[in-house]
Amino acid sequence: MPVVVTAVVHPKPGLLEEALAVYARHIDAVHAEPGCELYALHTDGTSIVVIEKWAGRADLDAHASGEVMAKLGPELNALRDQPADVTILQPHPTGTTAQGAL
Amino acid sequence: MPVVVTAVVHPKPGLLEEALAVYARHIDAVHAEPGCELYALHTDGTSIVVIEKWAGRADLDAHASGEVMAKLGPELNALRDQPADVTILQPHPTGTTAQGAL
Repeated sequence: MPVVVTAVVHPKPGLLEEALAVYARHIDAVHAEPGCELYALHTDGTSIVVIEKWAGRADLDAHASGEVMAKLGPELNALRDQPADVTILQPHPTGTTAQGAL
Repeated sequence: MPVVVTAVVHPKPGLLEEALAVYARHIDAVHAEPGCELYALHTDGTSIVVIEKWAGRADLDAHASGEVMAKLGPELNALRDQPADVTILQPHPTGTTAQGAL
């Protein structure tokens, strides 16, 4: 069963672009991880919101404890002073197939 | 330029299923609104997270002030006692086309 994740990352003031650059350096490696269906960056001008979809919970767990995050995580931690708000979600497909699920 | 929205809705205890049913009643009408590319429901077992993508900001604004929300909103309000956390986001496509943007 797929899992969807929202991760809200709060860079220190003035470091948004630098934090986006950290993601840009590692995103090809994330996208190549098993079961990665979406790992998409967004911003509201202050925070970064990553919307992720993994084929299964085991793939998400492997990502979270894997080699790519072991590099990306510390680089990102240097640019923030509060933890990310991570929410793990179960899709509830409703409506049309194309619009009702990621 | 497309806009992505995350809306976190907090039903009162015990009313999660009823709140999902409110969305189910109206989601075909939402999906039929102009510029609606995604309006996808998720839950963490307590809250509902709607992940939306609209073709443009004008489409989102028309949805927010439109007839469908004028019905859906009050039905949902009856089931919650705190406001939704709505975040309007700009996509920052990075990595592969298929995985790096909704």
